[in-house]
Amino acid sequence: METIVLKFGGTSVGSTDRISAVADLIQAASKEAFPVVVVSAMSGETNRLIDLARSFGSEPNKREFDALVSTGEKVSASLVAIALNHLGLKAKSLSAAQFGMKTTSHFSRAKILDMNNDILFQTIEEGYIPIITGFQGITADGDTTTMGRGGSDTTAVAIAASIKAKRCDIYTDVDGIYTTDPRIVPEAKKLDSISMEEMLELSGQGAKVIQIRAVEFANKYNVLVRVLSSFEPGSGTLILQEEEGMEDAVITGIASQTDQTKFTLHGVADTPGIASGILSPISDEGIEVDVIVQNISVSNKTDFTFTVATSDRPQVEAVLKEKMKGISYDELIIDEAIGKVSLVGVGMRSHAGIASSAFNALADAEINIQMISTSEIKITIVIAEDQVENAVRTLHKTFNLGD
Amino acid sequence: METIVLKFGGTSVGSTDRISAVADLIQAASKEAFPVVVVSAMSGETNRLIDLARSFGSEPNKREFDALVSTGEKVSASLVAIALNHLGLKAKSLSAAQFGMKTTSHFSRAKILDMNNDILFQTIEEGYIPIITGFQGITADGDTTTMGRGGSDTTAVAIAASIKAKRCDIYTDVDGIYTTDPRIVPEAKKLDSISMEEMLELSGQGAKVIQIRAVEFANKYNVLVRVLSSFEPGSGTLILQEEEGMEDAVITGIASQTDQTKFTLHGVADTPGIASGILSPISDEGIEVDVIVQNISVSNKTDFTFTVATSDRPQVEAVLKEKMKGISYDELIIDEAIGKVSLVGVGMRSHAGIASSAFNALADAEINIQMISTSEIKITIVIAEDQVENAVRTLHKTFNLGD
Repeated sequence: METIVLKFGGTSVGSTDRISAVADLIQAASKEAFPVVVVSAMSGETNRLIDLARSFGSEPNKREFDALVSTGEKVSASLVAIALNHLGLKAKSLSAAQFGMKTTSHFSRAKILDMNNDILFQTIEEGYIPIITGFQGITADGDTTTMGRGGSDTTAVAIAASIKAKRCDIYTDVDGIYTTDPRIVPEAKKLDSISMEEMLELSGQGAKVIQIRAVEFANKYNVLVRVLSSFEPGSGTLILQEEEGMEDAVITGIASQTDQTKFTLHGVADTPGIASGILSPISDEGIEVDVIVQNISVSNKTDFTFTVATSDRPQVEAVLKEKMKGISYDELIIDEAIGKVSLVGVGMRSHAGIASSAFNALADAEINIQMISTSEIKITIVIAEDQVENAVRTLHKTFNLGD
Repeated sequence: METIVLKFGGTSVGSTDRISAVADLIQAASKEAFPVVVVSAMSGETNRLIDLARSFGSEPNKREFDALVSTGEKVSASLVAIALNHLGLKAKSLSAAQFGMKTTSHFSRAKILDMNNDILFQTIEEGYIPIITGFQGITADGDTTTMGRGGSDTTAVAIAASIKAKRCDIYTDVDGIYTTDPRIVPEAKKLDSISMEEMLELSGQGAKVIQIRAVEFANKYNVLVRVLSSFEPGSGTLILQEEEGMEDAVITGIASQTDQTKFTLHGVADTPGIASGILSPISDEGIEVDVIVQNISVSNKTDFTFTVATSDRPQVEAVLKEKMKGISYDELIIDEAIGKVSLVGVGMRSHAGIASSAFNALADAEINIQMISTSEIKITIVIAEDQVENAVRTLHKTFNLGD
C-alpha cells in the first residue's frame, strides 16, 4: 500500500481547534495515500515541562528530563487520534516504546538506530492511521530518549525512508521556504522548490522551517520532502533530490541567525592536532559546533574561533575549563552579540565573483565582517548582532531575490 | 532488603514546592527502610487532560483516552526523581511499560494482572529509589491502560504486596481517617487505627482518603497500610488487619457521599433473573453499581432501584436503552438530587438496635429515608441531597463520636 508521511509541528497542534484542523488535513491526504502521521508536542508544552524540570535548582538528571519532556508528544498523538475518530476514521497513537523507535542512549540528543516497521505495517493493515510521537525514542534498556529540538522532523523523514513513503509532508506555520525571512525583507519570495543541498545549507543557518538533521536524512535516503502550512491551503515548497527542475538561480536564498555565541581562543600554540584537541571534547558532549575559523599562524601562535548555539554556552565553557587542560592559549574571548548571515545557492558553484559582490555590498552598507566561512554553495559571514537585519536586506536587494 | 512503599496523591505532588517536600519525606523514610515510591498526577493535571480529550465533541476513544491521561503520572514521577537527585539521592522513574505492570485491557477500569518484580529489585539493588507511575498499566499488546480514579492507591498496595514491603504509607492531604467528615462535623475525631473491614465500608461510602480497591487488595494480601498527611507531620491512621487493638466501639465512623444518581425501574415484571438481567449489562460495561434495593412484589410487579456515580449516568442510560430490551417496566425514574449516609462499625454486629436508634434520630430531625441497605457492619441510607449534612451531624451526635 502506498503511504504518505505527514508531520505536524507544535503550532499545528497548538490547540484542540488546531488539532481538529489537522484531522481534516489527514482525512484529505488519505485520498492520495495511506497516511502515517508524526506529531510534535502542543506548542508551549515542551517549555512548560522544561520549566518544571528546572525548578528544583540543579541541572535535572538527563534520563528523567527526557522521560518528562517526552510526555508532550504522547498527549498530542492521542488527541490527534481522538480527533480522527471524531471524523469517523480509525487511528491509533504509537509511542516510541510501542513503535520500537530505537535510539542511542545519548539523552536529549539521541540518534535513531533502528525502528520496527512490523508494528507500523500491522497497524496500517488493520486499517488504523498510526499517529506516532515525534522527537523521541527508547534505548536498548527501555529508557526514554529525546532527539533534541526539531527532532520530530527527523522522526518523520526517518519513518518515510524506512517504509518507503511516496512523500514526507512537513506541516508547519509557514507556507513554504522563502528567499529570506519575510519579516526582515517583506518582498521575499516563496520558492516552489529548492534543492536538497541548498535546503541543507539554509536549514543549518537558521531557516527554521525544517530541522537540518531531517534534511540530511532525506538527502541520504532519497526521501521527497515537502514543507507546507497547516494554517492555510497551498502547495508549499518541494525539496528536490538532485537539481531536477531547478531554476539556475545563482543565489536561492539568504538565511540569518542571531542566537549564536562566538568563542575565540586567542594565541593558541599552533601545533598539529590543535583543532581536534579543541573540538573533539566539545563534540563528545554532543554539542554542535557551527562556523569554525582558524586564522593563519603568526610566530607559531594562532587564533581559533568557533560558534555554537547560545544555549550551549555553559556546557562549552565547562568543557573548555575541565577537558582542555593540555591546550594553552593566551585569552578566551566569548561574544554573544553576534549573528550569522548566509548566502545559499547551487548556482554559486559556477559563478565566481559572488563573494566579492556580497562583500562589496556589505562594505557599502558599513557592515563590518568578523568571520567568513565558505562552502561550495554557501557563503557565511559572522557580524555584529544588531547589523544582521540590515545585512539580510542589503544582500536580498543586491542579488535581486524579491518578487 | 526491607522495603517500604510510599504513595503520594495528586495534592501531595501538586506543585514543584510540594514535590520538594515529598522528596524530603522520602529521604526521611529511607532511614526506616528502602523506599519504593508510587505517585499520582499533579492535582488538576488529570482533569486538564480529560477536558482536552472531551473537547472534540464525541466520547473519546477509550484506548487513546487512557494513553492521554496516563501522561500525568509520568510527569510527576520524573519530577519526583529530579527532586530526589537534587537532595543527592539516586532515583529512577519507572512507567508502567518499563516496570511491567500488566493489566486487563478494560480501558479506564483496568485491573492488575501481574507485575515484574525483577526490574524493581534490580533497580533497588543498583541503589536507585524507584518512582513508579500509579494508576496505570499495559495490556499484553502493549497498550496503555488506566485503573480509574484513585487507582494509584491500588498500584501502591499491589506493589507492597508483591515485594512484601513492611508497610504501605498512603500520603494524602488529610492527616488520617476521622469518625466523619470534619468539614461537616467540626468535633469529628481522628482515629489512630481502624479495622480493615470498617475501612472497606467507609472507603466505599465516600471517605475519600483511600480507594476501596486498594483496601480490598490490602485485606486480601495482608498489607499493613497507613494513611497520613504529606502537608503536616503526624502518625496518621493505621489500617489494621483483624481487630487487634481495636476499641470495641459500636460505631467507628460515618461516611457520606452526594455525587450519586438513583435509577428506579418502576413496575418491572417480577420474574426470576430480573436483577441479573438489569445489572449484568451494566457491570459488563465496568460500571460499579452501589446501593441496590428491590422492593417486594405487588401483583407480580416490583420496583428495582440502584445508585451509581453520577459521572456514569450517561453510560447507564445508554445501557438501559440499548441492552435491556427484553425487560419491560412501566417507568424509569432518575434522580441526581440524592445522597448517601453510612454508619460503619465492627461493633455493630453484636449490637441490635443500632439501626432503630439511627432511624429514630433521623425521624426526629425530620429527615425522610428513601432507601435502606444494610450489611453486617454497615447501615446505608439514601436521602435527599440537601439533607445529607444534617443527617451526618445528627448521627455523629447520636452515637457520641466526637472528642
